Amino acid sequence: MKPNFTLRLRVFNLNCWGIPYLSKHRADRVKRLGDFLNMESFDLALLEEVWSEQDFQDLRQKLLPTYPAAHYFRSGIIGSGLCVFSKHPIQEFTQHVFTLNGYPYMIHHGDWFCGKAVGLLVLHLSGLVLNAYVTHLHAEYNRQKDVYLAHRVAQAWELAQFIHHTSKKADMVLLCGDLNLHPKDLGCRLLKEWTGLCDAYLETRDFKAVSGLYISCKTFKTTTGHDPHSGTPLSDHEALMATLCVRHSPPQHTSSHSHGPAERSALISVLREAWTELDQGMAQALWWATITGYVIGLGLLLLALLCALAVGGGIREVAILLWTPSVGLVLGAGAVYLFHVQEAKGLCRARAELQHVLGRAREAQDLSPESQPALQPGRQEGDRAEEQ
Amino acid sequence: MKPNFTLRLRVFNLNCWGIPYLSKHRADRVKRLGDFLNMESFDLALLEEVWSEQDFQDLRQKLLPTYPAAHYFRSGIIGSGLCVFSKHPIQEFTQHVFTLNGYPYMIHHGDWFCGKAVGLLVLHLSGLVLNAYVTHLHAEYNRQKDVYLAHRVAQAWELAQFIHHTSKKADMVLLCGDLNLHPKDLGCRLLKEWTGLCDAYLETRDFKAVSGLYISCKTFKTTTGHDPHSGTPLSDHEALMATLCVRHSPPQHTSSHSHGPAERSALISVLREAWTELDQGMAQALWWATITGYVIGLGLLLLALLCALAVGGGIREVAILLWTPSVGLVLGAGAVYLFHVQEAKGLCRARAELQHVLGRAREAQDLSPESQPALQPGRQEGDRAEEQ
Repeated sequence: MKPNFTLRLRVFNLNCWGIPYLSKHRADRVKRLGDFLNMESFDLALLEEVWSEQDFQDLRQKLLPTYPAAHYFRSGIIGSGLCVFSKHPIQEFTQHVFTLNGYPYMIHHGDWFCGKAVGLLVLHLSGLVLNAYVTHLHAEYNRQKDVYLAHRVAQAWELAQFIHHTSKKADMVLLCGDLNLHPKDLGCRLLKEWTGLCDAYLETRDFKAVSGLYISCKTFKTTTGHDPHSGTPLSDHEALMATLCVRHSPPQHTSSHSHGPAERSALISVLREAWTELDQGMAQALWWATITGYVIGLGLLLLALLCALAVGGGIREVAILLWTPSVGLVLGAGAVYLFHVQEAKGLCRARAELQHVLGRAREAQDLSPESQPALQPGRQEGDRAEEQ
Repeated sequence: MKPNFTLRLRVFNLNCWGIPYLSKHRADRVKRLGDFLNMESFDLALLEEVWSEQDFQDLRQKLLPTYPAAHYFRSGIIGSGLCVFSKHPIQEFTQHVFTLNGYPYMIHHGDWFCGKAVGLLVLHLSGLVLNAYVTHLHAEYNRQKDVYLAHRVAQAWELAQFIHHTSKKADMVLLCGDLNLHPKDLGCRLLKEWTGLCDAYLETRDFKAVSGLYISCKTFKTTTGHDPHSGTPLSDHEALMATLCVRHSPPQHTSSHSHGPAERSALISVLREAWTELDQGMAQALWWATITGYVIGLGLLLLALLCALAVGGGIREVAILLWTPSVGLVLGAGAVYLFHVQEAKGLCRARAELQHVLGRAREAQDLSPESQPALQPGRQEGDRAEEQ
């Protein structure tokens, strides 16, 4: 790479609100999105909530001349809703489906059926390796009383771990998607502290890049209720458009991810917060498992009683009538019980991973000459870090 | 690293057959396993089928002085059964749960409830990065008529992709576990061709290592029905014990994974075979989804008929009695339908990833001067490679 080398990368991201039969003006919006993407000719267009594979295929046909490479990430029952169109060849791709993603019995929220995931694309641009990630985390239906908080924190952690472990040889890391997180939310901070990624919206000058590269965000635009060329909105979400500029970095600009004392104590603090959140989520999951365990027991008792009544005569018809609902109760409670057992296991797994990172960050803090004794209290989780 | 540097790595692997209440002499075997591991003091002991977390905790207590680091990989409803004990600090760990893992209604086989996964450990040994993976793929219950073949091939592919994407900066890659595959089976070949890993059992001289390192397997032992010190078996599986030797490689010994023409055509051939297997699995999944779709339709018709009969009088009691089993039929068929829809999506996802790698391998073959026209026929999948 020459010293005066500059790479410009134009990126588009949109949550398309593409629910078949439910999202308004879907066909028209997909058509206009295709026209817009063709006209703008971005390097990379990353889309969420493209729930209908037919919509993807239609876009694929339309965008083929401008974006020769494309991929639709399939998962779960409905799908991940994620897809990508690229002007440059996609060298490799894979995906990771999140372990936890809401509750199957919350049918009106539907997230569980989607199989939310993170997709990874590896691109080679001017001799540099770009790892581009696209994701969609669990929706936030009630910010004040968010029953999905533990799941979203677990998803943010899995996302951070997936990026951390798959991007070790990448020169540039780009994460796009709908995180359903505000910039100061726990999940967002966890993601940033553990991966070293920066928010293009907040900090347009420091993106994650290897030492020797310097990525800045030259332009950053969002739509504001309507697409830039037609008056009507493209989606119920706004689109993001950014121009990233990759340059050779003079030494003082090197923005590689390093854990100095300040970063380390920020990491420790956010890990502790996430640990607490996952711990509470786990307690909740185990509480539900216990309750449904009791329901199963009661249902089985009821069934035994009904059997006795049916055999012994008396109110035989009533006993037979009540038999099937009781079986339903036992089976239903059994399914909910199994679900919450695996939920607790999933949260426990994320907590154990977090705890390990927390333990190592604390060791590094204790060993570093700048170690700050003020951060020593509150070690209760760290002391248990070896108990995974 | 000095030129005459040598690192010796002693590894132990065992499928422990640790099913609570069902596996014979479990407590005694776990106790003897702990004694054996303490006495032998391996660098790394990787275990599968440790289904009871209490067994892990007991081993953890016992092995703490010899193996200060340990981790239990939690997932699914029962767990992954995977755990690891290490003499060296574990720098990082994470896991990936396989998308497909059998059928929930095959309760007697139970794999679906386990949440089978691959666990990753990152260790730093003498300045080298070792990525150690432990896994357990779906069991093979009937080799002649294996209904789980497509799932196991999809798991082998996910495993290969996880290793491929997470080991890019590793100096050494070690995979242990119970693959439920013979050395010549499709899943095993797929794994070896895509990751460049070698089988320590078959080829004790060439392990995967970065250029400049040379890994050989100095000793390779398996138990033969009994553990080496006591007469009775440790498990219903045999244990593997290997001593790996990592040395500086003279140039002619460099065994880094490269895709020359021979490797490329082997890769293409195994990818095509796996593609066909996944395609057949997908057809099967869609067939089941269609059948259950019809059952749902019939169940709904029956319910409508029963409603009419109950309202219209006539055989009212019979109608009411049949009502609940019909609802059960519709709900049960609905659940099976949803399961097979997500199964088809999971297989389709693996097929698309495979197809992409296949397309790129063929492009590389076409471009290389040694390209062999004899391999040109049978491009039917390759031509669809861009349709992901």
